[in-house]
Amino acid sequence: MRARVFVTLKPSVFDPQGRTIADALHSMGYAGVGDVRQGKYFELELDAPSADRARSMASEVADKLLANPVIESYRVEVD
Amino acid sequence: MRARVFVTLKPSVFDPQGRTIADALHSMGYAGVGDVRQGKYFELELDAPSADRARSMASEVADKLLANPVIESYRVEVD
Repeated sequence: MRARVFVTLKPSVFDPQGRTIADALHSMGYAGVGDVRQGKYFELELDAPSADRARSMASEVADKLLANPVIESYRVEVD
Repeated sequence: MRARVFVTLKPSVFDPQGRTIADALHSMGYAGVGDVRQGKYFELELDAPSADRARSMASEVADKLLANPVIESYRVEVD
């Protein structure tokens, strides 16, 4: 079963990488680009008996290793 | 309009970060974790008149700046 984990900085945390990307895009002529946020994306192959079990394993893994819960939030999708 | 861009290494490209994460999870007792791939995730606020236009702008931006098309592939979602 495949789980996808998206880790992003919390909205209250300044994202300098995203800001740099937005500035670069403006200087390349993309005036229509507003805020940009950069995050991390993980695809995990999980040996789990059900989607629920895969989801809870992926959440546990995100909490313990993939995300820093102080400044980051994450979202899990299973398919 | 918000576009989300997912950038991942092409399947044929070795992903040492993903491998390191998988090894770490195995040593933490998660034997059910198989392959792990790490990628990048971007959220872009776009001032575009339609979803199609936002999608094409996000693809252009991904091609030119966010992804390295030699070793990475990307996927765009608009909502």
